[in-house]
Amino acid sequence: MLGISERSKYSINPIEETNSAVKLLELSGKKITKLNIGDPAKYFRTPQYIIDAYISALKDGKTSYTTAGGLYPLREAVAAEYKESGANADDVIITSGVSEGLMFLNSIVINEGDSAMVMRPYYSMYNSFLQTMGGIPVDMNLDEQNGWKLDIEGASKAAHSSKRLKYMIIANPNNPTGTVFGRNDLSELVDIANDNDIVIVSDEIYDHLVFKGQKFTSLADVAKGTPHIILNGASKALAATGFRIGYALIPEHDKASDAIREKFIEYSTMRLSANTPAQYAVLSGLTERSERERFVKHMVKEVEDRCDYASKLINESKYMKVVPPKGAFYLFPKVDFKSLSIKDDKELVDLLLKRELILLSRGSGFGAASHIRIVGLPEKEILGDAISRIDAFLGKNRRAR
Amino acid sequence: MLGISERSKYSINPIEETNSAVKLLELSGKKITKLNIGDPAKYFRTPQYIIDAYISALKDGKTSYTTAGGLYPLREAVAAEYKESGANADDVIITSGVSEGLMFLNSIVINEGDSAMVMRPYYSMYNSFLQTMGGIPVDMNLDEQNGWKLDIEGASKAAHSSKRLKYMIIANPNNPTGTVFGRNDLSELVDIANDNDIVIVSDEIYDHLVFKGQKFTSLADVAKGTPHIILNGASKALAATGFRIGYALIPEHDKASDAIREKFIEYSTMRLSANTPAQYAVLSGLTERSERERFVKHMVKEVEDRCDYASKLINESKYMKVVPPKGAFYLFPKVDFKSLSIKDDKELVDLLLKRELILLSRGSGFGAASHIRIVGLPEKEILGDAISRIDAFLGKNRRAR
Repeated sequence: MLGISERSKYSINPIEETNSAVKLLELSGKKITKLNIGDPAKYFRTPQYIIDAYISALKDGKTSYTTAGGLYPLREAVAAEYKESGANADDVIITSGVSEGLMFLNSIVINEGDSAMVMRPYYSMYNSFLQTMGGIPVDMNLDEQNGWKLDIEGASKAAHSSKRLKYMIIANPNNPTGTVFGRNDLSELVDIANDNDIVIVSDEIYDHLVFKGQKFTSLADVAKGTPHIILNGASKALAATGFRIGYALIPEHDKASDAIREKFIEYSTMRLSANTPAQYAVLSGLTERSERERFVKHMVKEVEDRCDYASKLINESKYMKVVPPKGAFYLFPKVDFKSLSIKDDKELVDLLLKRELILLSRGSGFGAASHIRIVGLPEKEILGDAISRIDAFLGKNRRAR
Repeated sequence: MLGISERSKYSINPIEETNSAVKLLELSGKKITKLNIGDPAKYFRTPQYIIDAYISALKDGKTSYTTAGGLYPLREAVAAEYKESGANADDVIITSGVSEGLMFLNSIVINEGDSAMVMRPYYSMYNSFLQTMGGIPVDMNLDEQNGWKLDIEGASKAAHSSKRLKYMIIANPNNPTGTVFGRNDLSELVDIANDNDIVIVSDEIYDHLVFKGQKFTSLADVAKGTPHIILNGASKALAATGFRIGYALIPEHDKASDAIREKFIEYSTMRLSANTPAQYAVLSGLTERSERERFVKHMVKEVEDRCDYASKLINESKYMKVVPPKGAFYLFPKVDFKSLSIKDDKELVDLLLKRELILLSRGSGFGAASHIRIVGLPEKEILGDAISRIDAFLGKNRRAR
């Protein structure tokens, strides 16, 4: 009776699907320019004050399990990040990254055949966690022609015509499009959630990564009175991806929110604890405000500069066109495959890895075929070189007329 | 359409079900003797050489994601622990604790309505992870009358009469009974697995914690040719619970094992990485052999001494009787509720917490009503005091004749 479960059809992360090919190339001595994973710790050292706090915790013997829901002072610090929402520490659960928050969410609210609204293009893990729990994604489209703005009317219609809809999830700032949703956008989404009696979930892991002229608004500031969940963590804004510390905030106290929060805690007891000394590190990471602001300001400025530069270079290409991101740190250009002898984004990503040793992610993994995702974190020299080589590669593979 | 999923009926960990009550007591200034969670880092400091390696990794900037399957040198080090099995690094996946290994396992092989064999008494998380994925536990009984020896005939019959059986899981040394399964026991279990075409899974997290006269045998040394999975990690033998570093070893290369291993890797990509600097720490933890042996030897001697002492004290009570554990670090006495005015193990655990500020786990949470689980890790003074007070409490609550 050996075999693999039905749900495991969906246990995929397209960002990492080339891992084995990459390993083989590296074993043969090749150096690959990796622009597939959004890992700020690779390009901006995790700030020293956070490392110091981590080391202190280790020296102080903070190596036991914490309470399953997380170190209480860290839960307090996270609640304080969302002061406007009136949240307190008991409304916060510390997770092993946002991924674990997504896993808990889908375990808790999704029965086989339930559905959930996901923006398209999407961060693939929303779909993978939803589908492995038997759920069905319903698209809310971001319109590239309109600068990746949300088609709110379409979303509303899709919600109304969906069966057994349980929640809606948004990424703000958005991965992979870089859209930043403002107060009005969020209010409209909250209206849809209320109309359909569903939970609204906001993944705000890129909250600090917004560029000039943009303002980040937390869903928690807009969704008062509506059951909602904020997912966030230390990975991006504190450049601490390898710590695996995330948080889930469930600030409302209606019946549905209470039940979901209680289950978040229960699921967290099943794996006993998140990493303990890392929780102490993130506690300092959040609460040492002036150190934190200095670091974030520096990183955001750099990231914006690099993404602007990359956008400009991409838009100089005959074969690619990108909506410059307003936040996060991804470039998500459309590739003009009609003018190329390369079939699609999957083939292009495979070829770029093999021939140019450049690793990207295919847009079809984000629900947007003909696109590629380029991580905009590396220094301009690296980014510029990679984009020039991608452009040259596309030029070499243009379709004969 | 708000509501909680069916599977969330099973998202429980009875060891932690009193967390809220404990928190309230602690907020009111009470000090509780916690004998509910097996956390060696609380009683034996994580060895300094491991802390040093952890700090070095942090100082070296090892704070990015690792490859999802784990740091390759750590995977090599884990494979080397199971040399006899011929395993190599690619057969190992680094998990965030054994809990995550259990989650991956059940996600991968269990469809709604499938079943799996679990020893009773059981470590409750085997059942919780199985049941949240829609699986049905089938008991293999450990016989208390026979020193918690496995009833192998019963297990064989249960396997044959089970439908859609997918795997069998054992904990060796056993939690909560302290049974150590030898080569013969394991061979008999492997035969059952082969007869029923199922995978055999061995949770060996307590592998080094075996007492005088006992010898630990890894399933990997016995199950050659049979699809099997070893779960293990740094939590217990290295007293590093708060690191959340576990491993899954899938050493066979038959079709079923290959498919399961590939899916373990895929599921690991969904959460990107385990904690990175902790992986470096555990790498040193495993490979610095002389430091490691010195620490383990010291800890095991102490743990054995404490568990022996606690067993003796428990067996002096008129109301409790324990099979002294042969490994791990739990005491799992049966309480004679017939002679008490307390109804059952649940009521006893609740009363002990409220009245005596002693926190135990109820046996019914491990599938063995009328038992209590006491963690045997604290110093003799604490253990002795707790057991005396439990005994006195039982005496005060004996049934009037």
